Amino acid sequence: MRGKTRGVTGSGMTADRFGALAREAEALDAADPLAPFRARFRLPADGIYLAGHSLGPPSDATVERLAAVAEAWGGRLVSGWGEAGWIDLPLTVGAAIAPLVGADSDEVIACDSVSVNLFKLGHAALAIAGPDRRLVLAEANDFPTDAQVLEGLCALHGATLLRLPRDRIVERLGPDVALLALCHVHYRTAAMWDMAAVTAAAHRAGARVLWDLSHSTGAVELGLNAAGADYAVGCGYKYLNGGPGAPAFAYVARRHHAGLATPIRGWMGHAAPFAFEDGYRPAPGVRRLLAGTPPILSLVALHGAVGLAAEAGQARLAAKARALVRLFRAGVAAIGEPGLVIETPADGHGAHLAVGHPEAWRIVRALAAQGVVGDYREPGGARFGFSPMFLTHGAAVDAARRLARVLAERRWDDPALLAKAVVT
Amino acid sequence: MRGKTRGVTGSGMTADRFGALAREAEALDAADPLAPFRARFRLPADGIYLAGHSLGPPSDATVERLAAVAEAWGGRLVSGWGEAGWIDLPLTVGAAIAPLVGADSDEVIACDSVSVNLFKLGHAALAIAGPDRRLVLAEANDFPTDAQVLEGLCALHGATLLRLPRDRIVERLGPDVALLALCHVHYRTAAMWDMAAVTAAAHRAGARVLWDLSHSTGAVELGLNAAGADYAVGCGYKYLNGGPGAPAFAYVARRHHAGLATPIRGWMGHAAPFAFEDGYRPAPGVRRLLAGTPPILSLVALHGAVGLAAEAGQARLAAKARALVRLFRAGVAAIGEPGLVIETPADGHGAHLAVGHPEAWRIVRALAAQGVVGDYREPGGARFGFSPMFLTHGAAVDAARRLARVLAERRWDDPALLAKAVVT
Repeated sequence: MRGKTRGVTGSGMTADRFGALAREAEALDAADPLAPFRARFRLPADGIYLAGHSLGPPSDATVERLAAVAEAWGGRLVSGWGEAGWIDLPLTVGAAIAPLVGADSDEVIACDSVSVNLFKLGHAALAIAGPDRRLVLAEANDFPTDAQVLEGLCALHGATLLRLPRDRIVERLGPDVALLALCHVHYRTAAMWDMAAVTAAAHRAGARVLWDLSHSTGAVELGLNAAGADYAVGCGYKYLNGGPGAPAFAYVARRHHAGLATPIRGWMGHAAPFAFEDGYRPAPGVRRLLAGTPPILSLVALHGAVGLAAEAGQARLAAKARALVRLFRAGVAAIGEPGLVIETPADGHGAHLAVGHPEAWRIVRALAAQGVVGDYREPGGARFGFSPMFLTHGAAVDAARRLARVLAERRWDDPALLAKAVVT
Repeated sequence: MRGKTRGVTGSGMTADRFGALAREAEALDAADPLAPFRARFRLPADGIYLAGHSLGPPSDATVERLAAVAEAWGGRLVSGWGEAGWIDLPLTVGAAIAPLVGADSDEVIACDSVSVNLFKLGHAALAIAGPDRRLVLAEANDFPTDAQVLEGLCALHGATLLRLPRDRIVERLGPDVALLALCHVHYRTAAMWDMAAVTAAAHRAGARVLWDLSHSTGAVELGLNAAGADYAVGCGYKYLNGGPGAPAFAYVARRHHAGLATPIRGWMGHAAPFAFEDGYRPAPGVRRLLAGTPPILSLVALHGAVGLAAEAGQARLAAKARALVRLFRAGVAAIGEPGLVIETPADGHGAHLAVGHPEAWRIVRALAAQGVVGDYREPGGARFGFSPMFLTHGAAVDAARRLARVLAERRWDDPALLAKAVVT
């Protein structure tokens, strides 16, 4: 099994299996309206970066803005808050994100982290739910943090978190449910909920829904308002490419703005932060979700990145991501390796593909040594993310080819290769 | 009153009043061990920046690190979390802050904002207090946000916030008090609490203390452990010069680490964030205070800035800040303008001077047009901050001189000057 065939095209069988896919990819790349964006990202010269669902790469727009804000900081000092627009930046960036999630510009704000924003919006839902509605529903086996944040919140509200398997969530909706909190695209399998249908079901039961769009934003079509959504949070550093630990965002449907309660009554969410009033008087709309002073340097980087994504447009991003995943999926299916299981459903999925294998961890490492950076999630799952902003269709097929070679040659057994592997 | 004397040294009276102070400042500058730091900051070529208590300026170290992290992000991508040390950066920066606040390196973490950290540590105190201790004490007329954050928190805990005048705080401590939350240096008057004495009084009553060190860190001597402190939060963007909206920090005395409860159970505070365990299992020590993914770009900038402050050392920073405030105070006192009131106590104060005047708002603007940037806080208060990292003693005297001129010439009445004023 430890074949020494080096060149992929040198293997007749490999060429046969991937030839048609490669030709299709070539045609798609030639017609790709997003192709020019790749040159605007700063990526290592070689390799295929399939961990954009974990951390997106920097773009020229981001790096240039970061340099510019350092200049503005030194030049304007404290007056930058007004003159450089920092004071409104969370709303400015939120407005730029809005079209990517199908929201209006005054319904989104960029601030804090996904965890903190989940806490705030979970509180908003529990604060307005009646005493008979003390249940928060979430999915078992989804991203554990969301449940843990909500569980901590429930303890403060005399509420209970109930985690159920995916197929039992909707049937459990009832008059005791205050909130249904779901990850729109599953962090591991990439399975995607039907946002409009689930939201409608929750509303029929009198519950509100909080969508975590961390693995959705910039990757799939999102229509929060079209779906009648209540609340959402999302991540700035995955498909939005906003930088490591980029600020997150929060969405609140305009009809909920008037009664919006936030648990962390920080000064930037006050109606008049510089009047230093004794009493809490929340700012109108989503601005009240601000707590402390926002991290402007990180927010400026995110702003640059979001501008690029908005320029690409969510429909084109989603269509390309689907094509990339489809090509890679077809390639993986063509490998025919026993033990290799595609865990991502064929319909209704996000922009990453989850591939299970008993040796998944070592395969991911061996593949990284071949220049294909994916990531690994316990137990036994490799994830390959297909960021539509900077990947070519050819790369999706080539990644499957390299995976085939790693498997055919059992490269994960080779300690020398593993030593060179990128740790993700 | 609208004298047309332009040059300060042209006025015999002015020269007389400030001459001795100027000579003293010159001697202090000549012997100042922190003098070389000024050249490492990026400040406008002229003007005297007395708003470092609001937003500190960038240093070379900060700007260079910001450029380097953009490179590291592009070069390492997701592996930067391990290879570039991002995953531990909140603790690394916390450890760098520790000697500036008199804490051990494992007792401080840099994360989130002051507001969010106040919320977390207020929760920590209320979570361990018995059912008979449901009172949180705070100071009336202190920074309103702190009280508002604590009031929101109290609502979730069935607790009550009681704000009392400064001189009635300590006497109110009793068996019903869970937490005393105080700003160590008052945001407006700069009055400073005796940390050790107040902490001891609270402990005698069985209460814990949460110190907000926003206007203290990098400006006055701080000995959290020597004072037997419990909890503290502080700001990264004032005297630490970490950048607009820089991450804040949180301190928890080691003896409280074991039982530390955080309300926002985010994944970065989990014992094994990448194991994706179903249940919440907090990380040991202050790391559990992390919620979501920290904003690395902002944190890297703060890291550079904190390194400079640590190099200067808290004792030298505090001594110089005292000297700067003393010189400016003497200069202001020498002006002899009716209506000008120094609101900062002579003993026990931070690094800014609060000056009241019925026309304070317009005076601050007119002074900014003269190159002296201070700020204004309602009602009727000008604040002038004396950051010891980058100000000369001469500048403190010169600022008083320019204030004298603005007052003597009633420059705040001049619309042309006001139009040029920097809005702070």
